[in-house]
Amino acid sequence: MASRQVPKVLKREVVAQSRLLRIEAVDLKFSNGEQRQFERMQGSGRGAVMVVPFVDDQHIMLIREYAAGLHDYQLGFPKGLIDPGETPEQAAQRELKEEIGFGCEELNRLAEVTMAPQFFSAKMTLFTARSLYPEQLAGDEPEPLEQIVWSLDNVDELLAQPDFTEARSVAALLMTLRQLKK
Amino acid sequence: MASRQVPKVLKREVVAQSRLLRIEAVDLKFSNGEQRQFERMQGSGRGAVMVVPFVDDQHIMLIREYAAGLHDYQLGFPKGLIDPGETPEQAAQRELKEEIGFGCEELNRLAEVTMAPQFFSAKMTLFTARSLYPEQLAGDEPEPLEQIVWSLDNVDELLAQPDFTEARSVAALLMTLRQLKK
Repeated sequence: MASRQVPKVLKREVVAQSRLLRIEAVDLKFSNGEQRQFERMQGSGRGAVMVVPFVDDQHIMLIREYAAGLHDYQLGFPKGLIDPGETPEQAAQRELKEEIGFGCEELNRLAEVTMAPQFFSAKMTLFTARSLYPEQLAGDEPEPLEQIVWSLDNVDELLAQPDFTEARSVAALLMTLRQLKK
Repeated sequence: MASRQVPKVLKREVVAQSRLLRIEAVDLKFSNGEQRQFERMQGSGRGAVMVVPFVDDQHIMLIREYAAGLHDYQLGFPKGLIDPGETPEQAAQRELKEEIGFGCEELNRLAEVTMAPQFFSAKMTLFTARSLYPEQLAGDEPEPLEQIVWSLDNVDELLAQPDFTEARSVAALLMTLRQLKK
């Protein structure tokens, strides 16, 4: 499918910067001649992973973690940034060990997703993990993460939880279910 | 389910600010005594909507739009911020008219999702739209949006498209399919 020519970047400028984040203003000229200024975020550029861990064929594990953006606890799947030098698969194994105290013998890639690509370039690889075995790695969490085992018979109940809202966790859950039905 | 006490906010400070975005550093004390500084983004606080429009029982409509974060075109569903004074439903109708040139007689709420709630407070309400009728409203897009009609028989093909990656669009699509199967 033929896509349009991407707009021409006339000018880029960092307009705000913090310890972790950087906001860039980009002057763009679209192929029809229209000019606009967009703002976009530059993150670490490291990529991220999220893992749906299977405790057995019928049960997955979730974590409940403090989310500063909402200033509340949120239910979701283990996730984190890819460290320099790591593959997404290695990052997935490490995050599992740090966040739920398990490694896995079977890791399957579901998809790669983005988040508000109007503003962000960050990409996240989604995985399922099976054949878990206990192995704990020390993470950088300020407090132990609450772990919750959920039956796949009760997915509607999970989707209705007021603290299960992160679009990437929802996408990972529903992609997992879709794959199971094949 | 008893959730933990949310951390105590010791200090908040705006550490970077642009025209549209604001980054805040928050000093937090967790219930176990651990102290950490988190960074979070403050957006418009206006909320957003995304709509899966049904052209008929078997076909949905997608748009292809420039995404500055990725500096490329992306496939997804019509979406946008809620204007001051609007309900989510009114915003959904307006965005449909601006982005695909249709209003709808039937709007159904799928879910409310968040995006990286570790950093953001932004919430987006997902809808399906049925019984479309032509009505165009002028939007603020720099160029007309490409519209693509997709058959629900080819969902696997859609999920495999390299430019269909936004987690909120994936979640909206799979929630829509889940609802259809009930």
